[in-house]
Amino acid sequence: MADDKALTPRAEDFSAWYNEVVQRAELADHSPVRGSMVIRPWGYGIWEHMQRALDDMFKATGHENAYFPLLIPMSFIEKEKEHVAGFKPELAVVTHAGGKELEEPLVIRPTSETIIYSMYAKWVQSYRDLPVLMNQWANVMRWELRTRLFLRTSEFLWQEGHTAHATDAEAEEETLRMLGVYRTFMEEWIAMPVVTGLKSDSEKFAGAVRTYTCEALMQDNRALQAGTSHNLGQNFSKQFDLTFQSEAGAEEYAWNTSWGVSTRLVGGMVMTHGDDTGIVVPPRLAPTQVVIVPIYRKEHERTAVVEKAHELRARLADAGVRVKVDDRDHLNPGAKFWEWERKGVPFRLEIGPKDLAKEQVVLVKRVTGEGEDRKAFLPEAQALAELPQRLEDFQAQLLERARARREANSHRGVKTLEELKEILDGPGGFVYTGWSGDPAVEERVKEETKATLRCIPGPDFRSPNAPERCIGGGDSTMEVVWAKAY
Amino acid sequence: MADDKALTPRAEDFSAWYNEVVQRAELADHSPVRGSMVIRPWGYGIWEHMQRALDDMFKATGHENAYFPLLIPMSFIEKEKEHVAGFKPELAVVTHAGGKELEEPLVIRPTSETIIYSMYAKWVQSYRDLPVLMNQWANVMRWELRTRLFLRTSEFLWQEGHTAHATDAEAEEETLRMLGVYRTFMEEWIAMPVVTGLKSDSEKFAGAVRTYTCEALMQDNRALQAGTSHNLGQNFSKQFDLTFQSEAGAEEYAWNTSWGVSTRLVGGMVMTHGDDTGIVVPPRLAPTQVVIVPIYRKEHERTAVVEKAHELRARLADAGVRVKVDDRDHLNPGAKFWEWERKGVPFRLEIGPKDLAKEQVVLVKRVTGEGEDRKAFLPEAQALAELPQRLEDFQAQLLERARARREANSHRGVKTLEELKEILDGPGGFVYTGWSGDPAVEERVKEETKATLRCIPGPDFRSPNAPERCIGGGDSTMEVVWAKAY
Repeated sequence: MADDKALTPRAEDFSAWYNEVVQRAELADHSPVRGSMVIRPWGYGIWEHMQRALDDMFKATGHENAYFPLLIPMSFIEKEKEHVAGFKPELAVVTHAGGKELEEPLVIRPTSETIIYSMYAKWVQSYRDLPVLMNQWANVMRWELRTRLFLRTSEFLWQEGHTAHATDAEAEEETLRMLGVYRTFMEEWIAMPVVTGLKSDSEKFAGAVRTYTCEALMQDNRALQAGTSHNLGQNFSKQFDLTFQSEAGAEEYAWNTSWGVSTRLVGGMVMTHGDDTGIVVPPRLAPTQVVIVPIYRKEHERTAVVEKAHELRARLADAGVRVKVDDRDHLNPGAKFWEWERKGVPFRLEIGPKDLAKEQVVLVKRVTGEGEDRKAFLPEAQALAELPQRLEDFQAQLLERARARREANSHRGVKTLEELKEILDGPGGFVYTGWSGDPAVEERVKEETKATLRCIPGPDFRSPNAPERCIGGGDSTMEVVWAKAY
Repeated sequence: MADDKALTPRAEDFSAWYNEVVQRAELADHSPVRGSMVIRPWGYGIWEHMQRALDDMFKATGHENAYFPLLIPMSFIEKEKEHVAGFKPELAVVTHAGGKELEEPLVIRPTSETIIYSMYAKWVQSYRDLPVLMNQWANVMRWELRTRLFLRTSEFLWQEGHTAHATDAEAEEETLRMLGVYRTFMEEWIAMPVVTGLKSDSEKFAGAVRTYTCEALMQDNRALQAGTSHNLGQNFSKQFDLTFQSEAGAEEYAWNTSWGVSTRLVGGMVMTHGDDTGIVVPPRLAPTQVVIVPIYRKEHERTAVVEKAHELRARLADAGVRVKVDDRDHLNPGAKFWEWERKGVPFRLEIGPKDLAKEQVVLVKRVTGEGEDRKAFLPEAQALAELPQRLEDFQAQLLERARARREANSHRGVKTLEELKEILDGPGGFVYTGWSGDPAVEERVKEETKATLRCIPGPDFRSPNAPERCIGGGDSTMEVVWAKAY
């Protein structure tokens, strides 16, 4: 049973609020293994809805799922120079197996480029075998000492797409297509608006030519990198001899892309929509969208009310609503209300003896807009008829609210380092400035503000007037977004 | 592209046939990591259909999914004496992580009883928190030196259900319920009939009180253990302090069950239905149930035929059929036929210029019964209307055929060790005999025949007349099934 103590308010300590709410909403728990978390059924149910939606989108864009080994020979990881530099410090290493010391140590995959492209090299002979468009749902391991549930754990669950193409142009097109899929998913399913754009060289994936990213702004005005899509060029195909015979008969190296999102998205959902009462789960991701709480004091009341509750459940389920009756006898209605609000169920439907007599129900919405009533007393038939649309409206409202907050905390046209520092030391948020492209400027901003260059935003997100001056002085060649980040 | 060479016939070398067909049907491939396999999209697609069906059945019986850590402290595995004895020789051990040697080695889960019940101990306080009914879909590792794709690999994918109950009776009920779910799934989805029953003490799960099993008979007359369901009693709850306060107020240990099936089932499907042409995928598991092959010689023929193929595809998809058009230009129809037959697609639909003129299609069935035609020339409308039912009929036919083969190779009423040995050295199959329950008899049969006691069959599978004599001499107390096994 979840704890009934009030949560630390977000305004007081956002980080404490997050740690508390993730555990009290029963999304996840710490495990006896340092750095590894347990995803509890409520959290895993949300992840399953994320998986299903993404998987459908991957398949609709021509990808197939496959599964590659958990363990990778150390020598594979070491082949691509930048790749090994990026991942080696975080590796977990298997040195013994089957009662013996291994001849070569094996690492638990931190990501699977190396093992996957070594297999593609075996399968691909001709341009006719291209493109290869695969995805895998898997666990990965990147050793962490300071962990936070969902946001940073040694083991996490994710999907990693890996593709091989005959041309650089096709690979770039794929990289951008999957970035678009992620953006659509994050907006339409998590109701979490993102800024998409290109990473600077210092922030790109270890081994990529170009990394594109989805950056979301959390309620504490820190950025969350929510998903990335990489154009890997021929960096890995050259190390793993992934070649093909072109239509013209020449032996060429293939062009690769990889892209991934993880259970970190559950953390993003929490920090985008949660409030001081608990988390808020967007209806499309909610394992339970409507909870029906029967209210009664006497046994003869109980029978009629619980029966009605189950009748409503069956009718809503027929209408495609994910609905549950909470008919536990040892909890009073108030305790049930708190539990489901903490867990972020979009709607609660209360029904008591008086409602039964009036053929009405009480519908309570988890989040309300300005001037909107939290409770609605509705004729039963109307509630049943309207709930599917009300769930869709709730979903849209969450996105709109998150977008308004993000915009209110985006600072455009910032020209000086002082101004940038002032915003980041104060309210925080996304800060848009000009940049010359000089890595020394990026490094200086990072040192002085603790913020990082989140991305060079794509066309949808650029300011109406391109900045003329670089934040470090001199001419600007592009606009960039800075923020403190998770 | 798959290899065009003919397969080794099953009758010549079943084992060679299996190894070839798994790779040439592109189900799986060997990886550069000894003992680990790669599951390719065709194999993974079949596994996805298995997962979806099982997952729906688990949820319909009240279970929720969760996720527990990959790595388990060595000390956890060592707590339950029989458990550690069973699994220690197969462990893969992480000794270093994050650039340092770990204080305590961590093992990659061979199964998750220990870590899961340690978490249940944290979550369960009262009888009101019971039952806990969880499942996880995960990878596990049991180090193997002699591996076979799907049947025996170091890493494999599976689901493991773990439950906690207030009474022994409830735990036993759950153990048998999930055995029933497995049996239904194997029969109705894989079209693979199984004998269910109890394992003898020497064959039960390391740490279980009782293990129930599903045993299938492969075409080479060897048994495949296809899934197991364990009543764990209080063996683990006592080691991990998984206690609860009973309704009467007493502190009691919970009663556990665990149950699992794995990607091994894909191997079972191959060895149940495959033939010398390739594998046969039961329609309910087939990622593609119908492949449409347009046939043409000239370019103007191509346009019309391919257009019609896509029209039929769209109409079949609307009827809920998983259908694909193979319009690759660089392969001739014969090469496509061979490829899809090797991959076991239930139906092929051919359409050429003459068929177009006659508004007919040619429907070719992957497997035919006695006296049944392989090819049917059908009016287009009839083919479209009948295909969903023909797929269901095909599914039923596969189960019937497999059951008939299993029955033809089940030997009942066997009374002497000589007779048993003669059958097992000869044709093989399931051999039913009496048994006293004496482990020494079991050991002697194993030594003399290389067969193992597969199970003490449940009521549905017992012979009409209970055997009177034990196979080792003396009185019988139960009937048992022997077979050589994978």
